[in-house]
Amino acid sequence: MTTRTCHSIVLAAGLGTRMKSDLPKVMHEIAGLPLVGHVLKALAQAGSERISVVVGPQMPDLEALVREITPSVNCYVQTDRLGTAHAALAAKSSLEQPADDVLVLFGDTPLVTPETISRVRDALANGADVVVLGFETSNPHGYGRLILSDNGLQAIREEKDASETERNITACNSGIMGFSGEKALSLLEAIGNSNAKGEYYLTDAVEIANAHGLNVTAVMGTEAETQGINTRTQLATCEAVFQQRRRENILDIGVTLLAPETVFFAHDTEIEPDVVVEQNVVFGPGVTVKSGARIRAFSHLEGAVVGAGSVVGPYARLRPGTVLGADTRVGNFVEVKNTTMGHGAKANHLSYIGDASVGSKSNIGAGTITCNYDGFLKHRTDIGESCFVGSNSTLVAPVRLDAGAFVAAGSTITDTVPEDAMAFGRSRQSVKEGRAKELRARLKAAKDKKS
Amino acid sequence: MTTRTCHSIVLAAGLGTRMKSDLPKVMHEIAGLPLVGHVLKALAQAGSERISVVVGPQMPDLEALVREITPSVNCYVQTDRLGTAHAALAAKSSLEQPADDVLVLFGDTPLVTPETISRVRDALANGADVVVLGFETSNPHGYGRLILSDNGLQAIREEKDASETERNITACNSGIMGFSGEKALSLLEAIGNSNAKGEYYLTDAVEIANAHGLNVTAVMGTEAETQGINTRTQLATCEAVFQQRRRENILDIGVTLLAPETVFFAHDTEIEPDVVVEQNVVFGPGVTVKSGARIRAFSHLEGAVVGAGSVVGPYARLRPGTVLGADTRVGNFVEVKNTTMGHGAKANHLSYIGDASVGSKSNIGAGTITCNYDGFLKHRTDIGESCFVGSNSTLVAPVRLDAGAFVAAGSTITDTVPEDAMAFGRSRQSVKEGRAKELRARLKAAKDKKS
Amino acid sequence: MTTRTCHSIVLAAGLGTRMKSDLPKVMHEIAGLPLVGHVLKALAQAGSERISVVVGPQMPDLEALVREITPSVNCYVQTDRLGTAHAALAAKSSLEQPADDVLVLFGDTPLVTPETISRVRDALANGADVVVLGFETSNPHGYGRLILSDNGLQAIREEKDASETERNITACNSGIMGFSGEKALSLLEAIGNSNAKGEYYLTDAVEIANAHGLNVTAVMGTEAETQGINTRTQLATCEAVFQQRRRENILDIGVTLLAPETVFFAHDTEIEPDVVVEQNVVFGPGVTVKSGARIRAFSHLEGAVVGAGSVVGPYARLRPGTVLGADTRVGNFVEVKNTTMGHGAKANHLSYIGDASVGSKSNIGAGTITCNYDGFLKHRTDIGESCFVGSNSTLVAPVRLDAGAFVAAGSTITDTVPEDAMAFGRSRQSVKEGRAKELRARLKAAKDKKS
Repeated sequence: MTTRTCHSIVLAAGLGTRMKSDLPKVMHEIAGLPLVGHVLKALAQAGSERISVVVGPQMPDLEALVREITPSVNCYVQTDRLGTAHAALAAKSSLEQPADDVLVLFGDTPLVTPETISRVRDALANGADVVVLGFETSNPHGYGRLILSDNGLQAIREEKDASETERNITACNSGIMGFSGEKALSLLEAIGNSNAKGEYYLTDAVEIANAHGLNVTAVMGTEAETQGINTRTQLATCEAVFQQRRRENILDIGVTLLAPETVFFAHDTEIEPDVVVEQNVVFGPGVTVKSGARIRAFSHLEGAVVGAGSVVGPYARLRPGTVLGADTRVGNFVEVKNTTMGHGAKANHLSYIGDASVGSKSNIGAGTITCNYDGFLKHRTDIGESCFVGSNSTLVAPVRLDAGAFVAAGSTITDTVPEDAMAFGRSRQSVKEGRAKELRARLKAAKDKKS
Repeated sequence: MTTRTCHSIVLAAGLGTRMKSDLPKVMHEIAGLPLVGHVLKALAQAGSERISVVVGPQMPDLEALVREITPSVNCYVQTDRLGTAHAALAAKSSLEQPADDVLVLFGDTPLVTPETISRVRDALANGADVVVLGFETSNPHGYGRLILSDNGLQAIREEKDASETERNITACNSGIMGFSGEKALSLLEAIGNSNAKGEYYLTDAVEIANAHGLNVTAVMGTEAETQGINTRTQLATCEAVFQQRRRENILDIGVTLLAPETVFFAHDTEIEPDVVVEQNVVFGPGVTVKSGARIRAFSHLEGAVVGAGSVVGPYARLRPGTVLGADTRVGNFVEVKNTTMGHGAKANHLSYIGDASVGSKSNIGAGTITCNYDGFLKHRTDIGESCFVGSNSTLVAPVRLDAGAFVAAGSTITDTVPEDAMAFGRSRQSVKEGRAKELRARLKAAKDKKS
Repeated sequence: MTTRTCHSIVLAAGLGTRMKSDLPKVMHEIAGLPLVGHVLKALAQAGSERISVVVGPQMPDLEALVREITPSVNCYVQTDRLGTAHAALAAKSSLEQPADDVLVLFGDTPLVTPETISRVRDALANGADVVVLGFETSNPHGYGRLILSDNGLQAIREEKDASETERNITACNSGIMGFSGEKALSLLEAIGNSNAKGEYYLTDAVEIANAHGLNVTAVMGTEAETQGINTRTQLATCEAVFQQRRRENILDIGVTLLAPETVFFAHDTEIEPDVVVEQNVVFGPGVTVKSGARIRAFSHLEGAVVGAGSVVGPYARLRPGTVLGADTRVGNFVEVKNTTMGHGAKANHLSYIGDASVGSKSNIGAGTITCNYDGFLKHRTDIGESCFVGSNSTLVAPVRLDAGAFVAAGSTITDTVPEDAMAFGRSRQSVKEGRAKELRARLKAAKDKKS
């Protein structure tokens, strides 16, 4: 375990014009988490205890989002867009605070792993003054090439400046860098803008550090993890890479995915071994599925816990606040929200269970609706153990069914049903003999008249 | 802009035996449009103002379909099937009408683009007498090869007649052709049938035109767009190519597709920038989605307009005639048909809303059903602004809820609910103490007796 | 047709540690059938009339499963795990019974085809004493190589023992073997365990047989069909291979799959020509779909028959015991279970139809629920021909609707509705003028107070 301190600067000021979006680029999401959130999460896992995020002007939503994800982050505004080094220096006051390691990452590179970040930090711990994160690619065209020698990283050569030999180099620059904390600020401040665009480029630190005889090195990550996102197509590609990664990982844990390519995970999905996930399942954020559960086809889960041995779906929608105990059943076309269901409870068909508790072994009949909303406030429905709610019942919250209560099918329930009581809230059937025939004749005449 | 006139002949007489279908081949669909419809659409976009379609005998459904898609089309019946030139000549009376350009296409080649057709027309405008649409392929086996020289297209060589050198040619014949309008008929009539099968082949026009010293040339399209469909596998492949094309195009517009490979578009889907489409969404024909809307997972839309900022799904089904205003919500297991929903209106759970209007800011509770059908005719449900329809309500059309009306949960509503009135149509709850216990004992005894 | 007898031994004792599962490995499923079931099914189709399955100790569930799939199977327990030959000899008493052919297969190799098994049997019929099923692979690393000569199969060389030349051999051993029935037992018993692990390897039979001058040969299958399953990833891969195979086969039959990669078949799905299957459809076991039917997107079918010309879905769930007649309609968010629907019957929206019969031309309104369960027993709902069940009705089983009966929308029906009668089971609507306004004021005050 390293005990070195680490300050990371995440550059997130880009507008992302090519996204053609009103949303700042790094607020777009992968696996239910904004791009910048992935970077913050990876940094936290790699032990960076201090993080600065550089945002663009007039991005209050981004600042709020960043603080929501990682409250300790400080945001800095880059008012003009004059290159990556200029962006990093927007956090100058933060760079003036001591740190052993200083990392600079991009808010639009969401797939970089904590392991790779740790390897950059390891290189710093081993004496490097500047570390460039590179990657090997079979198609280096357009990337800056890493000119490596036995003495470390000599230079980063841009495509247009590269010789023919250099163009064959397949080790490329990801843009992500690490600096010795002592030298970071002075190196960044030494970067000039004598180039075609008049911008300050972070990668120039390599040349400057080498000129000063500092220790410059490269660490290699994968091409997939270092890809930045500039378009919706790249967003979709990164999402696909993320999903592929998670599916492989989930299979390795000992989970059956009947058709892995049709299952979509969120950044924080937790699934225990011996769970079976059928085809076409979407996990939104905040889901835990316990061992032996089966998530059937076409289910959608967000913010939910599925107890061991439970069966969910097909076509079940679990919304935030759902906590299913062991051996529960939530079946087709059933929506559950902010509801606890006890051991062995069942709601198998066409129901809406919201803001409720359902006691163990209770059975919620098909078509049951909890009326939890009056247009202004939400109210609770509390159903005790071993209750039987007949089909097509309407439970008008706030309302309580005590243990063993039985609601007759088709009832509207507005008051407490005491323990072991039966409740009726429906009309008695009446029959009009022969009336259907008459009605049909009348309706048919109306139709004929119309056409 | 060309002002040349253009007469196109679409050959659509094939039975498509290898489809193993009772349906004429060109009536099978790609992206919700019959194959022949794609060709008609591309021709219209390429400025062909006159179109003849050659159908087989006893294909009244196809003739009707063609006229429905493009009312101005003339259909001609090819009674015997004696080759492509014979088929084109079924439209002889139409060929006798003057046109600058004459094109011959196939009804089972749905992916040909207007751009490519326009390039065939450009070649005619530039003086060609005969134009062949070719394509490059890495696997030319089985295709007729284009024998090109500086003087244009010398010949089309069939696989069996090709020399070893010619077999290496990767430029192949798609079958699609353009003719100078002046010469089209005489060239087609010059084609003979002295070949193994005794059929009249359109491609023979190349040899004939060259023999007469005419200007013969080739224009290259892509392999994908020139593929004909003969089997269900090829149908599926073409559909996949179409979807891939549309997904790329939609991403380029600035739409987020969380998992592009799981989203299926119709031939005419219109989506504005900054829309998000989640996983597993199917667009049937006739859908428009406005900016900022979110189409959640597992939704199915046909003939619907989704207003800006609206959220649809998961598991929403919008059917033809649905017009959702801005900031509406249509949630899970909700079907909407032939219904207008005003700004900010909501129907979030397990409802059927058909033949209705829902005023702005009205809230339709879970499990609400509009009873729009009496077995003979459909009737309307009109709900004013800011109404509250309690859960599990039954609205028996024709019926009206005036602005601010409130329907108690579980009610059946058969008459007008006046402005700001409350309506009840449910029974008062009654409770039988201890009765559930007795009932369970009785039911358990019945079960025990049975087993 | 061969009239040779065939005894097959299926080795299924493996724990499948790498599956990380409490379930014995061969009980995991592909296409809704346990792995071992696929092997049993293929053997039956290849004419093996006698099958022995070797299971591990304490696998009563596996034994029961095997007997359920193929009642005539005999199970043998391998108490220690000392190699494949040792496993096969667990069935020694069965090997002592005469058979022309003896096959040894693996319970975790589910994709082996009857055709390939038949070719192993053909080799035995043609005089081979030992037959090894091999496969060609572009990446033979790790597999035993088949050393073939004009005289047949000389040896199986394991990776570690192979010369450089032998390592280039791409013909590999699948492990599946055939033996002349006369010699099987003596060959197996001749296998020793003088090797690093001290185990008895079935493949040693090749060397022994050759040493005795017996006829040893190899038959080649495909790499895909001979793959064993050791991990969840391999399970998913085999499932994908199975699905790919079935999709191609179904397309060949003349079925349209709009997006084949999104349709999942069970091992026994039967679909007739000219059926259309839309996107995202899951077939569980036991489904038959008749010609001209359309299975719309997001449907899930298990144990159901869909009649000719019927339309199912989108979002329909057909459960076991569903038999739909011709031209029926089961629409969105409708669940049907253990129910027969007659010709032209419809249940188009948000309904649960369980343990019922629905007469021809009857129409089940949106939101209809059959209450078939009282917490202990299931009861039947019988609906005659040409009935009309109004929307949001609750049919409390056991109950009967005679032909032409009409149920008013929103009714709860508990008693028989006679022929052509109308039944009401709902309350009359009452209206409280101005009350909604008062209520809103009150609720708003409550909300304001709370926040």
